[in-house]
Amino acid sequence: MEEWLKGDERLDYLLAEDLRIIQSPSVFSFSLDAVLLSRFASIPISRGQIVDLCTGNGVIPLFLSTRTKAKIIGVEIQERLYDMAVRSIKYNGLEDQIQMIHGDVKEIPPMLGIEKYDAVTCNPPYFLDIETSDKNLNEHYTIARHEVLLTLDEAIYAASRLLKQGGKAAFVHRPGRLLDIITSMRNYRLEPKRIRFIYPKMGKEANMLLIEGIKDGKPDLKILPPLYVYNENNEYTDETKELLYGKKG
Amino acid sequence: MEEWLKGDERLDYLLAEDLRIIQSPSVFSFSLDAVLLSRFASIPISRGQIVDLCTGNGVIPLFLSTRTKAKIIGVEIQERLYDMAVRSIKYNGLEDQIQMIHGDVKEIPPMLGIEKYDAVTCNPPYFLDIETSDKNLNEHYTIARHEVLLTLDEAIYAASRLLKQGGKAAFVHRPGRLLDIITSMRNYRLEPKRIRFIYPKMGKEANMLLIEGIKDGKPDLKILPPLYVYNENNEYTDETKELLYGKKG
Repeated sequence: MEEWLKGDERLDYLLAEDLRIIQSPSVFSFSLDAVLLSRFASIPISRGQIVDLCTGNGVIPLFLSTRTKAKIIGVEIQERLYDMAVRSIKYNGLEDQIQMIHGDVKEIPPMLGIEKYDAVTCNPPYFLDIETSDKNLNEHYTIARHEVLLTLDEAIYAASRLLKQGGKAAFVHRPGRLLDIITSMRNYRLEPKRIRFIYPKMGKEANMLLIEGIKDGKPDLKILPPLYVYNENNEYTDETKELLYGKKG
Repeated sequence: MEEWLKGDERLDYLLAEDLRIIQSPSVFSFSLDAVLLSRFASIPISRGQIVDLCTGNGVIPLFLSTRTKAKIIGVEIQERLYDMAVRSIKYNGLEDQIQMIHGDVKEIPPMLGIEKYDAVTCNPPYFLDIETSDKNLNEHYTIARHEVLLTLDEAIYAASRLLKQGGKAAFVHRPGRLLDIITSMRNYRLEPKRIRFIYPKMGKEANMLLIEGIKDGKPDLKILPPLYVYNENNEYTDETKELLYGKKG
């Protein structure tokens, strides 16, 4: 294992999938948000090209690789995370399908090609870069969680530039930013088509949303059935378990 | 009864409330949408002024009167519906609290007073005025359901003009128009604060939404728990029953 891991890194199982992922408690570990986005996004199955922006340790490309034969490119600005992603992809023998790029999402579209991709996924930093005091003191977490290097609007603009007409962009974010997401998506020709709200449990307000838009799509928004993460006993609901660990049996 | 009713009108019970309402199958009958909006809207309880736009036969002012002592004004453009509303209000002895105005919502704000009201409710026509062939042949239904005399944007603009700073506007509409509602609300200084999606039953897409905004409010949107109208046996859920008929016992 030492040849694959550095420092406090671990080689975690990628839940139901027959894959492993390098993580580090001091740098970044993937969350439920990434899993749900990986399941929610509409992607081409047999061929095509997908880009995952803000890919972190590559969790979304790894998950997506189990659903598609399309090529997947992950973009990450933090070298440490990029490096973990590259090693995870190599460990899983997925170098032919997944390519990692160490770069800034804002500068990526002209590098990768404008209007060239079938699908873009993005789990962007969630928090506005306003209150310095609120920021995590760990720089890796700060960049992954706060809009210090990339705003939500910039992420959505980059996604739109990468997509072909009719291509699909899927994002995960907090419900408090729904209005900003929708405004930016429409500004950049990504017509929202599907939204799913995630509720921690029944009777609570939503704490996450999944949204997908089609480039130059016609207005026709569907609000999908809610997903409850926990049941009343604070265990994962059956639907969450299925999304995390796959169908039983 | 004849003194109160005209033609094919009926005097219906207003569900749980100790009130009656004049309805006519050939003109207009209130729907679940109006009931849910009446329960959802934040209104002043002991004093203040409320306006209900597109009030139809006055169902929302009648419902709201059971929750508040504030004055309520209903605005309806169709004389036939206005006339039914006036008679229902009189029948219930609510002339001191509820006033009906026969007029065009677009022209109402300067007449009633700009930035004067604490709350506005509106159950607007749902359907775009595009396909003539889709329109109901009954003119009363067409005007109530289609945007022939009033667009969604115009309704939201009128609501905003009527409201004081900090006043609240609540609308009910179809999820497919969520993006248009939000865009118009923000254009007219109504910051969306609460959204509740209504699902016909578990596992289905939402078919209705309730949304409330505050004039010049700060961005902070909450997605409330979903409401399911029917259970798996196609009966009203307990929560729907409570909203329609009040608490048991």
